[in-house]
Amino acid sequence: MKRIFLDNASTTQVDTEVLNAMVPYFTRYYGNPSSIHAYGREAHEAVDAARGSVGKLLGAQDDEIIFTAGGTESDNLAIKGVAYLNKDKRTSPGPHIITSAIEHPGVLEACRHLEAQGFKVKYLPVDSQGLINLDDLRTSISKNTFLITIMFANNEIGTIEPIQDIGKIAQEHQVLFHTDAVQAVAKVPINVKKLHVDLLALSSHKIYGPKGTGALFIRNGVTLQPLIHGGGHEKGLRSSTYNVPGIVGLGKACQLAGRRMKKDTTHLKTLRDMLIKNILQLEESYLNGHPTQRLVNNAHFRFTGIEGESLLLGLDKKGIATSTGSACSSKKLKASHVLLAIGLDPVQAHGSIRLSVGRKNTKTEMSYVTEALPEVVAKLRTMSPLWNR
Amino acid sequence: MKRIFLDNASTTQVDTEVLNAMVPYFTRYYGNPSSIHAYGREAHEAVDAARGSVGKLLGAQDDEIIFTAGGTESDNLAIKGVAYLNKDKRTSPGPHIITSAIEHPGVLEACRHLEAQGFKVKYLPVDSQGLINLDDLRTSISKNTFLITIMFANNEIGTIEPIQDIGKIAQEHQVLFHTDAVQAVAKVPINVKKLHVDLLALSSHKIYGPKGTGALFIRNGVTLQPLIHGGGHEKGLRSSTYNVPGIVGLGKACQLAGRRMKKDTTHLKTLRDMLIKNILQLEESYLNGHPTQRLVNNAHFRFTGIEGESLLLGLDKKGIATSTGSACSSKKLKASHVLLAIGLDPVQAHGSIRLSVGRKNTKTEMSYVTEALPEVVAKLRTMSPLWNR
Repeated sequence: MKRIFLDNASTTQVDTEVLNAMVPYFTRYYGNPSSIHAYGREAHEAVDAARGSVGKLLGAQDDEIIFTAGGTESDNLAIKGVAYLNKDKRTSPGPHIITSAIEHPGVLEACRHLEAQGFKVKYLPVDSQGLINLDDLRTSISKNTFLITIMFANNEIGTIEPIQDIGKIAQEHQVLFHTDAVQAVAKVPINVKKLHVDLLALSSHKIYGPKGTGALFIRNGVTLQPLIHGGGHEKGLRSSTYNVPGIVGLGKACQLAGRRMKKDTTHLKTLRDMLIKNILQLEESYLNGHPTQRLVNNAHFRFTGIEGESLLLGLDKKGIATSTGSACSSKKLKASHVLLAIGLDPVQAHGSIRLSVGRKNTKTEMSYVTEALPEVVAKLRTMSPLWNR
Repeated sequence: MKRIFLDNASTTQVDTEVLNAMVPYFTRYYGNPSSIHAYGREAHEAVDAARGSVGKLLGAQDDEIIFTAGGTESDNLAIKGVAYLNKDKRTSPGPHIITSAIEHPGVLEACRHLEAQGFKVKYLPVDSQGLINLDDLRTSISKNTFLITIMFANNEIGTIEPIQDIGKIAQEHQVLFHTDAVQAVAKVPINVKKLHVDLLALSSHKIYGPKGTGALFIRNGVTLQPLIHGGGHEKGLRSSTYNVPGIVGLGKACQLAGRRMKKDTTHLKTLRDMLIKNILQLEESYLNGHPTQRLVNNAHFRFTGIEGESLLLGLDKKGIATSTGSACSSKKLKASHVLLAIGLDPVQAHGSIRLSVGRKNTKTEMSYVTEALPEVVAKLRTMSPLWNR
């Protein structure tokens, strides 16, 4: 059976160039970068070079990048790392964080954990297209606010938030600004200086790099409390033997992303728009998220009378991999917090599905999908108690 | 130039079988295990199989194993995870942890961080061979003690602690027992049930698996607070997209370790003993650590009149990779806390070097090393102000 991977927002296939760059670090240059002998020096140089590649993609200096095991760890380190240093600094009603209602669980759950420890968290609502309101943000800032954490682009519906405006507001109020840019990196040009971002989290496996590696941009001068204590790696912020092959892979993935961004985004947008145009011709089908301020790889639909998981399984039988909600929550039965936040009711939320295209997808595949999907929808509707025509 | 890697306690070359097992998960089975489509299911099955392999090596059930990004994270999760759940449970003089003075920084620094937050920590001293005293341990336990964390085997001098005895004492006093087994796994047969261990940390890259992956055994019934919050992976204890290739590699490494342990340990012991026998023939050379209760791969020496780092660099010029102290601290100038704890003075500590053998080392290599090392020592001694003969 032909297989089509349309779940690239969940994870991506490792690029051949990335894997080729990694392999020698498993087998030949396998030293520990903290060692001072030749094996160690080779590995250390590779880590330094990768750091440079990540920094370059973000418009950051090399020494503003630290490596982690992924996006969730980067988010946790940024948010808790800043919070724990600020917990005693603010007076009643307590230290205050501003985030949004549609963040990735890596941000939301970190915030909820801090709430349980006495921090105050404001979850900004979003409009029906998934955008926060900048006036809401401004009025939410108090003298106790020390951190704003708003995602660059949403992982479910693909809406891109006004990051530069948020950055300016944060700067004006002298509040730190962290952004979870896991979905945005390699799809949106990013310059941390121009955006006034203080902290930015990214993940390797969303950009054709290996799983188990991520990075955190930390603007020079911003201090954090580490989550993991030990040998003092990464300026003491993240102790652990360097995952050299993973880091080399992330470096190469960032290098490729920079080099290919224009070509890739044009390609992705073409494929995405084929999906949107054709699928919206289906009766009672709707696009979730913003029509224009959305990621080039994201198409997110809802269909009246359809249960998203049944649609997913029907497409899976035809070899097409898609997602309902985010991968991390796809095995849970709760309606997506993102879809509820944009105003869908639970039935509409459960009737939604995400198709996310990647570098390797083709127009032929899109044609196959835009034929297959209506068939599955039609079949499901014939069995649906919610669809009585 | 011939290159000989005698720093296998710092890291190891990834086994070819391990890499071959991993590669398809970068390129073909690249799904996110949390996804419910076919790509996700394939990846999920691979993670489950690896969990079984890790469990089997430790005599644990599959559901008692969680995956992390490495030994340091596993240690931090075990120690802080237990501590944060116990911080309010004990009365004055405060919640109490017992550890040893010679732990890896992943344990020591986690404990120091907890001390700064009001926890009391007892750092048990060790004797001149690196062993803790069981009577000391017993008398250190108070009603406020909730955790004992003692390493299985020391990463610098290779001394193996009496883990089963410690486990029994912990059990008798109803105190949880965590052990950092990063150096012991694959070199010492381990059965967590027989040893009465509640938590056990291991690292993949010390056993011919990839860097960036580790695991934590958590006995069923033991509860922890996570370090990283998010999508709820690993029963909510460690949120992050699974590092599938890394986990597959760790699983394969554990499988190989189980299958090859007898053959490997015989080989390592032969090589280690060649080093010890020949190098101790040098004038004023001494073995650090325990003569018999030591890891099969560890030879740790000190030489009067020698600066360990100069010896390391001299050997490096001859293609031989060794270590002074642990890799994480090898770039720092402080004397090793382990060597000071066994009673060496700073000069003796700085005059020490670790040679750690691995699966791929050969007798021919040992012969080369036992010829090269005395030459370097002799040369350094002619220049040493501490060596006036």
